Amino acid sequence: MQLAVESELADYIIAPDPDAPRLTRTIAGLDQTGAQTALSVVEERPLTIYLNRQEIVTAMTIGDYPEYLAVGFLRNQAMLRSGEDITGVDYDEETETVVVRTASQTTYEDKLRKKTRTSGCAVGTVFGDMMEGLEGVRLPAAAVRTSWFYALAARINRTPSLYLQAGAIHGTVLCRGDRPLVYMEDVGRHNAVDKIAGWMLMTGERADDKILYTTGRLTSEMVIKTAMMGIPVLASRSGFTAWGVEIARQVGLTLVGRMRGQRFVCVSGHDRLVRDADPASVPEEDRKHMRKSAGT
Amino acid sequence: MQLAVESELADYIIAPDPDAPRLTRTIAGLDQTGAQTALSVVEERPLTIYLNRQEIVTAMTIGDYPEYLAVGFLRNQAMLRSGEDITGVDYDEETETVVVRTASQTTYEDKLRKKTRTSGCAVGTVFGDMMEGLEGVRLPAAAVRTSWFYALAARINRTPSLYLQAGAIHGTVLCRGDRPLVYMEDVGRHNAVDKIAGWMLMTGERADDKILYTTGRLTSEMVIKTAMMGIPVLASRSGFTAWGVEIARQVGLTLVGRMRGQRFVCVSGHDRLVRDADPASVPEEDRKHMRKSAGT
Repeated sequence: MQLAVESELADYIIAPDPDAPRLTRTIAGLDQTGAQTALSVVEERPLTIYLNRQEIVTAMTIGDYPEYLAVGFLRNQAMLRSGEDITGVDYDEETETVVVRTASQTTYEDKLRKKTRTSGCAVGTVFGDMMEGLEGVRLPAAAVRTSWFYALAARINRTPSLYLQAGAIHGTVLCRGDRPLVYMEDVGRHNAVDKIAGWMLMTGERADDKILYTTGRLTSEMVIKTAMMGIPVLASRSGFTAWGVEIARQVGLTLVGRMRGQRFVCVSGHDRLVRDADPASVPEEDRKHMRKSAGT
Repeated sequence: MQLAVESELADYIIAPDPDAPRLTRTIAGLDQTGAQTALSVVEERPLTIYLNRQEIVTAMTIGDYPEYLAVGFLRNQAMLRSGEDITGVDYDEETETVVVRTASQTTYEDKLRKKTRTSGCAVGTVFGDMMEGLEGVRLPAAAVRTSWFYALAARINRTPSLYLQAGAIHGTVLCRGDRPLVYMEDVGRHNAVDKIAGWMLMTGERADDKILYTTGRLTSEMVIKTAMMGIPVLASRSGFTAWGVEIARQVGLTLVGRMRGQRFVCVSGHDRLVRDADPASVPEEDRKHMRKSAGT
């Protein structure tokens, strides 16, 4: 395995911390020959997210950056509108909760109360209103060089990560041009991207010059989250779902998937691609990175 | 790609139907050379599940077997207790809803109403009470031959599937001995296993002689669902999370992961393995099936 040189790692604002003791555990098992083996596996903890006094959801997460996860989740679910005045984000490790506080009651809390009054409860609401907040969203038509995709994939694959150390984890990376900036990983399907959304919101980072790279599938939820974050380009090693493609075309998201070695497919926004790389010059992937794939 | 011979397919009670027109769509894209390409991608639709008059959740699903999905989801969340009298399961394609009706109001609805009264609403409840229903569960100590794992992996990998056709999908297979019986696929993370749970409940199939095989990761949720179904063995191509392993050991679930070619690791219940296969005689995987992996 070829690891990143120091200078490349230094480029990251946030890189994975595969040696953090709280994120992995060594467990004992027996292999196919009956021999004892020790495995490094990732942790998985519940985290309950509150918006002011309202309990919203319990997410299963690896447990790093709980504040970013909570803020990003609420933002991507349109429960926090852009420009909402966040007055505090309080994480309590013992009770495994994060409370996100806003200056005034949010419209979401109000809506939830109304729905509760009219139909008894609103358990389904969080996931039912997925498309909300997406009306009228039209992402900026940012040009993107195909050489960036190849450079990003190579750099990200070489970066020491929990995936390389323990597997069974998703990775999502916020990038600008050919440079990966913030690399989040999580056991929860969409937590990695929510942590990036939280980081962007809390640091005031702009979105229109960014690319989001993910190891996961390009489902509707992934596409919606990227659009909610205002990022104009989403790229993945994995494949597409029909509805994900449809929404990407609707909001003007450049969507690139099935990136493996020199191959990729662009299904939305291909007129924005600047084809400055010769695919034939890109090496095929080695065995280890082929595994970082996933139809799944 | 070597496909299953007819006699093998005939062994299935339910096999994937990769040619069903409602499950995939062909979309246009451009590849890395700028050439037009047509891709087969899986569909993804919302399905809202009701328990009697109570809206429970909206799941994103490929859309086959909505009744099994609804019943299995409710059962695996302990909202339907075993022995609950299901009086009807009504799927409405136009509104994309399934209503599961029971003879009397379930304890879950009652609990939900109470929680709604005391704390305003219960959005987080569905996922917060994951461990509920698991108290005192102790799975039967079924012996399992290691030759079955190899035979199942080979058969399942050869079975024509939406994964082989379109990718970006999870597969879960209910097996007995070395024979795969019910093979479900879905875009939603846990829908495939919920559809199997629904099928088992609605057909009255016994669980104690079964093995569950999945392409996905062995997270806490996957382990809990398997335990809720009463199945004593869970096997996967993918890796583990720490909490998944912990719960498996607690409920006495035989847990086998990282199955690739001749390799596998058993982290719970290894005293039940009958090591009747010589790993050295098992061929390594070809490239196509290596991709059906997923740290993710």
